[in-house]
Amino acid sequence: MAITAQSVADVCGSAKRASRPLALLDTAAKNRALEAIAAAVDERVDEILEANARDMDSGRAAGLDAAFLDKLRLDHDRVAAMSDGVRQIVALPDPVGEVIQGFRLPNGLDLRQVRAPLGVVAVVYEARPNVTVDCTALAIKSGNAIVLRGSSQAAHSNAVLAAVAIEATNDAGLPQGAIGLVAGGGREELAELATQDGLVDLIVPRGGEGLKAALKNVATVPVIYAASGNCHVFVDADADLRAAEEIVVNAKTQRPGVCNAIETLLVHRDVAPEFLPGVLRRLRDAGVELRADGRARAAAGDLATSLQDVTDEDWDTEYLAMVLAVGVVDSVHEAIEHVNAHGSGHSEAIVTGSTDSARAFERGVDAACVYVNASTRFTDGGEFGMGAEIGNSTQKLHARGPIGMRELCTYKYLVEGSGQVRP
Amino acid sequence: MAITAQSVADVCGSAKRASRPLALLDTAAKNRALEAIAAAVDERVDEILEANARDMDSGRAAGLDAAFLDKLRLDHDRVAAMSDGVRQIVALPDPVGEVIQGFRLPNGLDLRQVRAPLGVVAVVYEARPNVTVDCTALAIKSGNAIVLRGSSQAAHSNAVLAAVAIEATNDAGLPQGAIGLVAGGGREELAELATQDGLVDLIVPRGGEGLKAALKNVATVPVIYAASGNCHVFVDADADLRAAEEIVVNAKTQRPGVCNAIETLLVHRDVAPEFLPGVLRRLRDAGVELRADGRARAAAGDLATSLQDVTDEDWDTEYLAMVLAVGVVDSVHEAIEHVNAHGSGHSEAIVTGSTDSARAFERGVDAACVYVNASTRFTDGGEFGMGAEIGNSTQKLHARGPIGMRELCTYKYLVEGSGQVRP
Repeated sequence: MAITAQSVADVCGSAKRASRPLALLDTAAKNRALEAIAAAVDERVDEILEANARDMDSGRAAGLDAAFLDKLRLDHDRVAAMSDGVRQIVALPDPVGEVIQGFRLPNGLDLRQVRAPLGVVAVVYEARPNVTVDCTALAIKSGNAIVLRGSSQAAHSNAVLAAVAIEATNDAGLPQGAIGLVAGGGREELAELATQDGLVDLIVPRGGEGLKAALKNVATVPVIYAASGNCHVFVDADADLRAAEEIVVNAKTQRPGVCNAIETLLVHRDVAPEFLPGVLRRLRDAGVELRADGRARAAAGDLATSLQDVTDEDWDTEYLAMVLAVGVVDSVHEAIEHVNAHGSGHSEAIVTGSTDSARAFERGVDAACVYVNASTRFTDGGEFGMGAEIGNSTQKLHARGPIGMRELCTYKYLVEGSGQVRP
Repeated sequence: MAITAQSVADVCGSAKRASRPLALLDTAAKNRALEAIAAAVDERVDEILEANARDMDSGRAAGLDAAFLDKLRLDHDRVAAMSDGVRQIVALPDPVGEVIQGFRLPNGLDLRQVRAPLGVVAVVYEARPNVTVDCTALAIKSGNAIVLRGSSQAAHSNAVLAAVAIEATNDAGLPQGAIGLVAGGGREELAELATQDGLVDLIVPRGGEGLKAALKNVATVPVIYAASGNCHVFVDADADLRAAEEIVVNAKTQRPGVCNAIETLLVHRDVAPEFLPGVLRRLRDAGVELRADGRARAAAGDLATSLQDVTDEDWDTEYLAMVLAVGVVDSVHEAIEHVNAHGSGHSEAIVTGSTDSARAFERGVDAACVYVNASTRFTDGGEFGMGAEIGNSTQKLHARGPIGMRELCTYKYLVEGSGQVRP
C-alpha cells in the first residue's frame, strides 16, 4: 500500500513511458485490468474505509463543513458503487481504433480517421475519493495513462484507492506507471503538474472556481475547464403545463448544488398567469427562495407579495442553492436571447408543444446540452451512456458536455496506398 | 473598397454579433454567399492584381527574399485558383447540423450529438494573400464569422481581397461583420486579437515559428498551433523497392519547403545495401545534401565518400530544404521508436509488403497522419477532400491534421423527451 514519494515530474515521466504500451493494449487486456480493479476495491473495502475514517476525523477536526464532509465520506454502499462503476465501464465499447470516418480518395488512397488515446491525462480533484477510481477506469479503458492529484483533505482515502488500483492493474499486466498519484495536495504541486509539457497531454480540473483560477494562471499544458452551470428552463406558450411544473421542480430542487440544476425560470407571457401561481407555490413550499421580475410578480397571484425583486446580477448568478430567478418573456426568441446573454453554455431546456419553438430553441441556444421537454438534470456522462465522466465541459473546443472515453482520445489519419506520390 | 479603420475589439465585436445569425443560415444561403465571392474575385481581378503589384513593389524595395516574394505574388492563374477553390467549397457538404452520433437512452430520451459552428474564428497569416479568400470561404460555409489578420507585407492585397469578399457577401445577405479584417499587421494588434476572450472562439496561426512564439506568450483565447513537420519515410525489409524509391524522392524533393516533406529516410538493414545506392544517387543528382549514419554509409556503395556524417541534432531538425538525414535500423520496431523519439507528429510513412509491419507502424506511430505505401506529401486539406484548409494541426486536442470545416465546428447535444425528470 505504501506509495514511495516521487516528484511530480517523476510521476508524469513514468506515466508518459507507460502510455505507449498502454495505447497498444487490446480491449480484453484493458477489461481484465478493470475487472481486477473492481475486485480489489470490493476485497479491500475495510482498508479503504479505515483510511477514509482518518480523513473524516481530520476533516471534522479542521472544521470542514457538512457538505464537504458528505462528499468526502465513504461507506460500504459508496465503495460498492465504485466497483459497480468500473464494471459498467468494462461493458462499454472501447473507443480506441474506432473509425470516425473513412473513404477512398480520387487517387486511390484509402483514408480512415481513427480514434487513438491522448497519452497521459491528469485529473485534479477535490474531496470525492470515488473520482480516483472512476477516472482511472475511464483513462485505462481509453488507453491512457492517468496522473491523479486529489486534495489534501482526502489524502488517506486517495492513497489507498490509488494503491488498490495500481497493485491490481500491475498484477493484471498493465505497464508500471500507468496510474500515478501526485502525493502533495498543495499549489506548488499543482503548478508543477500544469507545466509538464510533453509529458501530460491534458489536465481536467474537477472542483471549484478557486482550483480553476489557480490552474488558469499557471497551466502551459492543455486544460479543459468545466465552467459553472447557469441553466434555464423556458416554459413556452403551448407547453404541457403539468409536465412543465414537474420539469421545473425537478431541475431546481432534485439536487440544487450541482451544475446542471437550473437557476432561472423563464415563462411565456401567454401562460404566465395560469402557470406561475402553482409552480411558485410548490417551489416555495419546497424551500426555494424566489426572485421575480415585475411581470412574473404580476402573474403570481396571491404569492406576489412573498417574492423578492430580481436584480440584473441575479440573471448572471449560479446560486448552486435553493434560489430561483423568475422572469416573463414575450416569445421563444426573447427566451433564446436571454439564455444566450446570461447562460453559461451548460444545459438549457424548453418545455413546449410547438415543433417550431423546439427547433428554434435547439438551433438558437448556444450551449453544450439543449433539452426539449425534459429536465436539465440529465447532463451527465452516466446518464448519457458514457459510463462515469471525467468532468463536464462548457468549452467549445475538443470536448463539450460530459467528458467520457471518446473525449479522452485524439485521432489519427491512416492512409493506405499502392505507391501513390504527389504529382 | 475602402475599409474604415476599426479597432481590433470593434472588428471582433462585430464578428461576434454576426456569428449568431450566421450560425442559423441554411446551406443554400451560405452557398449563395460563396458563389458571390467567387464571382466577385473573378470580376475584380484587375483591381486585385494592382493592389498586389503595390505589395510586390514594396516587398522588393524592402529586400524581401525570392521565396517570400513568390508566396506574395498573385497573377491571373492564382486569382482564378482562388475563385475555383471557393466553388469547390460550395460543392462540399455543410458540416452544420451533421449528426455525429445519436441514440435513445433507457428512459426514452432521444439524444443527438450535432455539429454547430464555433462562432468567431481568427486566422493570422503571413504573405500568401489567397489565405484571405480560402479561409473566409471555409469559415462562412461552416457558419462562422472570421477575423483576418494578414501581414503588413501583403496589406494592399489582403485589403482588396477582404473588401471584395465583404461587399459580395453583404450583397448576398450575410450579416454585417461576418468577415472582418484587422488592419494593422503589428505585434500589438496580434496581442489584442489574441486576448479577445468571449469574442474570438479560436485563433489559427499560419506562419513561421516567430508568429507562433509571439502568440504563445500572449494568447488567452484558444489557439491551434501547427507544429513543424519533421517527417520520415521508413523502407521496410520486404518493401517494393521501386515504389519505395519513388515515394522517397517525391516526399523529399517534390516541394522541400513544406511541412509534409520528409527530413529523414530510415531503411531496414536487410535491404539497405540493395536500396540505398540507387536512391541516394537519384537524390544527390536532384540536388539533395545527404547526411548518413555509419550503417547507411556502409551500405551506400561508391557514394559513401560523398555522404556527410549525420549528427544527433540532424534527427531532430526540420530542414525545409534539400537536405536529408539517412539511417539504417534493425526492425520496424526500431523505426517506430526512432519516429516517436524524433518526429513532430505530423506525417510518417512506411513502405512495406508486410501486413504485420503496416499494422505495427499504423498503431505504434504517434502522428496526425500515418501512411502505408504512399508519399507523406498528401497531408493537406485539399488532398483529403476537405476543400482548402485553415491550417494543419499537430496538436492532439480538437483537431489533428488538416483543419477543415468540421474542425471549425463544435457540437451540442440535443436531447428530446416527453417530460422526463431525474429520479
